Amino acid sequence: MKLFVLNGPNLNLLGTREPETYGTATLADMQDALCALFPDIDFRFVQSNHEGDLIDALHEAASEGASGVVCNPGAFTHTSVALRDAVAAVGVPVIEVHLSNVHARESFRHRSLTAAVTAGQIVGLGMKGYELAVRYFLDGAGA
Amino acid sequence: MKLFVLNGPNLNLLGTREPETYGTATLADMQDALCALFPDIDFRFVQSNHEGDLIDALHEAASEGASGVVCNPGAFTHTSVALRDAVAAVGVPVIEVHLSNVHARESFRHRSLTAAVTAGQIVGLGMKGYELAVRYFLDGAGA
Amino acid sequence: MKLFVLNGPNLNLLGTREPETYGTATLADMQDALCALFPDIDFRFVQSNHEGDLIDALHEAASEGASGVVCNPGAFTHTSVALRDAVAAVGVPVIEVHLSNVHARESFRHRSLTAAVTAGQIVGLGMKGYELAVRYFLDGAGA
Amino acid sequence: MKLFVLNGPNLNLLGTREPETYGTATLADMQDALCALFPDIDFRFVQSNHEGDLIDALHEAASEGASGVVCNPGAFTHTSVALRDAVAAVGVPVIEVHLSNVHARESFRHRSLTAAVTAGQIVGLGMKGYELAVRYFLDGAGA
Amino acid sequence: MKLFVLNGPNLNLLGTREPETYGTATLADMQDALCALFPDIDFRFVQSNHEGDLIDALHEAASEGASGVVCNPGAFTHTSVALRDAVAAVGVPVIEVHLSNVHARESFRHRSLTAAVTAGQIVGLGMKGYELAVRYFLDGAGA
Amino acid sequence: MKLFVLNGPNLNLLGTREPETYGTATLADMQDALCALFPDIDFRFVQSNHEGDLIDALHEAASEGASGVVCNPGAFTHTSVALRDAVAAVGVPVIEVHLSNVHARESFRHRSLTAAVTAGQIVGLGMKGYELAVRYFLDGAGA
Amino acid sequence: MKLFVLNGPNLNLLGTREPETYGTATLADMQDALCALFPDIDFRFVQSNHEGDLIDALHEAASEGASGVVCNPGAFTHTSVALRDAVAAVGVPVIEVHLSNVHARESFRHRSLTAAVTAGQIVGLGMKGYELAVRYFLDGAGA
Amino acid sequence: MKLFVLNGPNLNLLGTREPETYGTATLADMQDALCALFPDIDFRFVQSNHEGDLIDALHEAASEGASGVVCNPGAFTHTSVALRDAVAAVGVPVIEVHLSNVHARESFRHRSLTAAVTAGQIVGLGMKGYELAVRYFLDGAGA
Amino acid sequence: MKLFVLNGPNLNLLGTREPETYGTATLADMQDALCALFPDIDFRFVQSNHEGDLIDALHEAASEGASGVVCNPGAFTHTSVALRDAVAAVGVPVIEVHLSNVHARESFRHRSLTAAVTAGQIVGLGMKGYELAVRYFLDGAGA
Amino acid sequence: MKLFVLNGPNLNLLGTREPETYGTATLADMQDALCALFPDIDFRFVQSNHEGDLIDALHEAASEGASGVVCNPGAFTHTSVALRDAVAAVGVPVIEVHLSNVHARESFRHRSLTAAVTAGQIVGLGMKGYELAVRYFLDGAGA
Amino acid sequence: MKLFVLNGPNLNLLGTREPETYGTATLADMQDALCALFPDIDFRFVQSNHEGDLIDALHEAASEGASGVVCNPGAFTHTSVALRDAVAAVGVPVIEVHLSNVHARESFRHRSLTAAVTAGQIVGLGMKGYELAVRYFLDGAGA
Amino acid sequence: MKLFVLNGPNLNLLGTREPETYGTATLADMQDALCALFPDIDFRFVQSNHEGDLIDALHEAASEGASGVVCNPGAFTHTSVALRDAVAAVGVPVIEVHLSNVHARESFRHRSLTAAVTAGQIVGLGMKGYELAVRYFLDGAGA
Repeated sequence: MKLFVLNGPNLNLLGTREPETYGTATLADMQDALCALFPDIDFRFVQSNHEGDLIDALHEAASEGASGVVCNPGAFTHTSVALRDAVAAVGVPVIEVHLSNVHARESFRHRSLTAAVTAGQIVGLGMKGYELAVRYFLDGAGA
Repeated sequence: MKLFVLNGPNLNLLGTREPETYGTATLADMQDALCALFPDIDFRFVQSNHEGDLIDALHEAASEGASGVVCNPGAFTHTSVALRDAVAAVGVPVIEVHLSNVHARESFRHRSLTAAVTAGQIVGLGMKGYELAVRYFLDGAGA
Repeated sequence: MKLFVLNGPNLNLLGTREPETYGTATLADMQDALCALFPDIDFRFVQSNHEGDLIDALHEAASEGASGVVCNPGAFTHTSVALRDAVAAVGVPVIEVHLSNVHARESFRHRSLTAAVTAGQIVGLGMKGYELAVRYFLDGAGA
Repeated sequence: MKLFVLNGPNLNLLGTREPETYGTATLADMQDALCALFPDIDFRFVQSNHEGDLIDALHEAASEGASGVVCNPGAFTHTSVALRDAVAAVGVPVIEVHLSNVHARESFRHRSLTAAVTAGQIVGLGMKGYELAVRYFLDGAGA
Repeated sequence: MKLFVLNGPNLNLLGTREPETYGTATLADMQDALCALFPDIDFRFVQSNHEGDLIDALHEAASEGASGVVCNPGAFTHTSVALRDAVAAVGVPVIEVHLSNVHARESFRHRSLTAAVTAGQIVGLGMKGYELAVRYFLDGAGA
Repeated sequence: MKLFVLNGPNLNLLGTREPETYGTATLADMQDALCALFPDIDFRFVQSNHEGDLIDALHEAASEGASGVVCNPGAFTHTSVALRDAVAAVGVPVIEVHLSNVHARESFRHRSLTAAVTAGQIVGLGMKGYELAVRYFLDGAGA
Repeated sequence: MKLFVLNGPNLNLLGTREPETYGTATLADMQDALCALFPDIDFRFVQSNHEGDLIDALHEAASEGASGVVCNPGAFTHTSVALRDAVAAVGVPVIEVHLSNVHARESFRHRSLTAAVTAGQIVGLGMKGYELAVRYFLDGAGA
Repeated sequence: MKLFVLNGPNLNLLGTREPETYGTATLADMQDALCALFPDIDFRFVQSNHEGDLIDALHEAASEGASGVVCNPGAFTHTSVALRDAVAAVGVPVIEVHLSNVHARESFRHRSLTAAVTAGQIVGLGMKGYELAVRYFLDGAGA
Repeated sequence: MKLFVLNGPNLNLLGTREPETYGTATLADMQDALCALFPDIDFRFVQSNHEGDLIDALHEAASEGASGVVCNPGAFTHTSVALRDAVAAVGVPVIEVHLSNVHARESFRHRSLTAAVTAGQIVGLGMKGYELAVRYFLDGAGA
Repeated sequence: MKLFVLNGPNLNLLGTREPETYGTATLADMQDALCALFPDIDFRFVQSNHEGDLIDALHEAASEGASGVVCNPGAFTHTSVALRDAVAAVGVPVIEVHLSNVHARESFRHRSLTAAVTAGQIVGLGMKGYELAVRYFLDGAGA
Repeated sequence: MKLFVLNGPNLNLLGTREPETYGTATLADMQDALCALFPDIDFRFVQSNHEGDLIDALHEAASEGASGVVCNPGAFTHTSVALRDAVAAVGVPVIEVHLSNVHARESFRHRSLTAAVTAGQIVGLGMKGYELAVRYFLDGAGA
Repeated sequence: MKLFVLNGPNLNLLGTREPETYGTATLADMQDALCALFPDIDFRFVQSNHEGDLIDALHEAASEGASGVVCNPGAFTHTSVALRDAVAAVGVPVIEVHLSNVHARESFRHRSLTAAVTAGQIVGLGMKGYELAVRYFLDGAGA
């Protein structure tokens, strides 16, 4: 099973900045943990501060036959119709993940342009959110 | 470990109505599945069409020392400041769960009054969402 | 033919308060008049100041095989997504009735959360509205 | 008893277009049915795609001493202050009728400029709505 | 003189939770203090997390001939048209009391649906607000 | 104990105009009544139609060591950020008083720019409101 | 000097309906009074309930070389972009007149689509407004 | 007959600045012209950049028994609830005058807080507007 | 092939007024040019300042079996739900044409009520827009 | 004659995804068709999922002396002020093209940030829109 | 070179109150520092809590031939159209200065009524902002 | 002292286009001028039309220990939450500079997403703004 794990702008700073909000684990830590937990999954990790790179990665996920995408669009969540269109255009199911509880922050973070076209969202559960999203793809949706 | 699982209005109809949206599993099916998956957890299940009952149950979770609450407030998500205040008032962490992707439905379902005071949300992943929420409480937040 | 006639909050005060707006007939008068006019219909009358009771009653209408529901949600019209969801969830056609012309009152009464999922609405025609709604169910929709 | 029955823009197409929304009965069918059901009422039927014609007809209803007006303003419901003023200016009670449930359609159809000055509205009950409005005028408002 | 003192959702938690916002006095403490201060007043105390219970209590205040109601609707202040209608329907003057300064909190707490139909409001003065409201009923309005 | 009692624009007309809204007592009557009721309090009364005068008076209250300010900002309540800033800048607690129930009047009177930075508000209780505000300062906040 | 005096929908009812708002003088009375007051002016009076007729009349005013237009667009003031465009397109200066003070009525009457392209407006001064508008054209703008 | 003519902020600059918008006549020119045109009227002219001065002047107009007030509130039109309340409080009829067509300028100039409580408005007719307003008071309202 | 070319209010003035915005070609010039360019097309040209006439013309296009309608609704674009309903009701594809770039003009011109139910729009390309619309109908949609 | 043809995000997927909305022709098909239809035009085709690339291309169009730009900004239409500024900054006329009728889709697609500074728009006419835009540049604007 | 330095309401409290926001330097300190830094500039310092005084000072700056105005309107920034009009009316360039970063504070501080008519703004740089503004006037605008 | 000077989209065109708005100096001219004025500062200049490049540069400023960033985000000011997050994430103080007075332009330019997390803004002072921002970093904040 192949899964893409996409992270948007500023998430490369994870663990080194604003640890009180985002914890001390780095993006690499999270990726290592996922690989350790799910050794049979073929992960593709992409982080970029460029909206276009994330769109390209979503197109790639489709053309490479990925089973799902775990995507933390970061700030693009609230501003990018282009990313939304990419999610809607590719046939691969996408789960949107946010580390912090965006609904407890500034009001412009309450609106997600991408959420409506994803399969679902996991919000505010920190890096655990990535794991739960992977588990969803692994197990299917039955309780 | 004691967990409360709360379900709001009309969720007693699960499985018998609108199966194309909500699937054919009933609320009892979901509860049985959770008990089977997590035999060591002491679950308390509450479903009510009365806002006041859910507030009472949240107060009870606090006074009974529950470790967490998995709460699908249903339609009250969008209208109940009282439920929000209850979540904020009790010290117990609450994860908000929605079966369907509320962001893909009517615009009045995009606003959650409760989300800001919960620990996080799992949205659109069907009954699997309850399981993932429980797992979050069970494992803690590290990936 | 079985019909439910539901009345929401404060409608128990009908006839005894604000007669200049709502007339002097009581809820019981209205119910007696309906029974007299339509002796062959099996009426179930419910009035409650509790949103949850009205939701329960709508569920009951479905489980008891009612042919229709005449529902005056009162103030819940403007605030209850839960009631709306109940109307949408049960398969029974619902006609929304308002005694006064809500569009001639405060602006927050102009929005109906429930109207979109009902079969139709009869507004401002006083207690006559209940009778016309029953007649609609009795005759079918042809002119 | 004299009653005016007014129909606004595009209602001349009834029965021949969009039958899935409006049914197959034509405006003439509806008018014939009303005449057959209420042989003692002196009906005056007016349909026009011109806002000014409907205003003129309302003025006429007043000057000819009509007892009431059954009015489906169609699209003018949502845009015509002039029609609203005509309804308010003439002393004749007006019941606003809509064939479809406008509240289940586009949001710009949820606002009625005319409703506030009418006696009441009957919405979403198809051609049966015209009959119920006539019956209201015929019987008076007591249940 | 008979006065009703109503308290809405979550106010049963007073004194035990969020003492930094609401102080350490419990609802019972407040009620005892009022009885001690005003021994000649016949108080009726009602607290409920159910909107319907508060509406019922308002109806009761009217039918029992109370001279006034001191009402802290809590979160229902901002969401309940039904409670507003109850206040407007009963002939008894109501003073709305809020412990905290709602205008210094979230913007959704700035709107009161009930205020417009009450006699007045006392906001942000803590439990002293209940006493001042009672004093208003006791003394009348002259300075 | 020194208290400032500030009154904003047009309140100099009290008692002589619009008595149906504001009663027949003049501002001087109110001031005399307060002095009679609370002979031990050192009152400073200021009324002005100039926003700047009220700001100056608030600064003065601070520099003169007043224990509190009872302030009816009148129309400035709804438009003056400068007055709000003055209330926030001086360390003296301010209670905002309104004679009429502003929430039952035009919608632009529902917004108070000053309320968020005051200690609390007393609204709609007529001249009695000034007395209750003084009593709050005199007694402290315990019930 | 040729002046057009245009009156929009429902103004043909002047004097016969709602005299408490609009007085008992008819449109003909006003026209006669203007002719008597300004015998040297060549007046052209147009009243219509049809938006298109008023547009046609504005075009005519231009092609006939009128010096000015006194125009009471009635309800079209608030809804007609077409009328606005006609005013802007013809080179003739237009003064907008309203009999009643539209700013003291419903909020949808506070917006004028036409005002921005007229020379000016005279509002709330009753039929005197027509005379003052004529006088403006007659005297020019100097005091 | 005594009339007050009030002019608000920046109108003291008339004639010396922005002549393309406001012409070259000064405020004094306008006042002289009014005195010359209406020698029998006892005019009181007030101009101030202070909101409080205009409120004081309105109070004075009332206490001095003026028959009317011609008032150009300038920028206060759009921001001053205090001035609005003064107009409403004094029994003297007020006509609001604007030199330029405020509806053709920035959108924040389209809203008048004062208009609703004046007798009427004359807008965009330059200094001629003052003369027409005086004429209205002189002649009464009949055409 | 039969095509209707409809033009709305004030477009009869084309070429004679506001040439800086709309050019010097008249409506007749445009119609002649279209006939010359497409001699095999059976054109029906309609211009009216009456909304009802354009609705009638759309109905006619349908009943006469036209292959398409090129429609410049002018100001009705922004205000006419009735025209929108007519476009939606007739089965004939409609292309909306605007001479000027409406998005570069007043904000109320940015909203098109009709666009959503047309086949497409050509905006800002002057009279060339009519030709391109005809060409679309002539060639079909393939590049 | 040199023309740039720009296509924004996700348009590289044309023909392979969502054919029910966008048809089965690919971007290459469209480009080939344009070259075949207009052999004398020197086309430059750019597609990118990066906003910055499209801005760069617009700058290039200017520096290379292109006669026009046919631009389908895709999702950037609704979010990119930077693209709008680029269109406004370069002196080259731009025609905005959309394949689908954006006004019949989600409301956030109804707003175009770029439209106001383009020469015009062609919307909803599929790939034919590109051809018509080219024809506009080729022929000039006369009908 | 003559420069006016204007400071609005509550800025007289600088240095003595809220030092965590505004520092401990007083207004006099700032004025002294400016005089020391720019000994050749003829400064005129005005501080007032009265909007009218600031307008008068702006008029004075113009009549006295000042080269520029450094203006911190304080709270009037967000509410005073009169001050905006004064800035626009006088020919003297004005730089708006704010000590704190108003965009990081309450949302009503994000809107500046005056900014649009000033030459520019310096925001959030503390008392250094005054110096930089003076330097701008002294050096001219070239880097 | 190391300072980054960032310039966003389209600012590479400075001096060559729209000189009436932005002057004739190029970006290189400005950079040369800064280097000449402040020879001891180690400047890093970045201009890009790619949002991601600016985010990368901000990250770099932090990792390279820059003392401050002078940033003209251009159009991204109004649309980029990602840039805002980058400013907030890096510990380096940022001053936002705009060449033109954005508050005097289109309303969508009045909102800055980035301003709230910067140290301050300098707006409308042309290229001089960059110099003043550098001076702020050089001198510190004391007047």
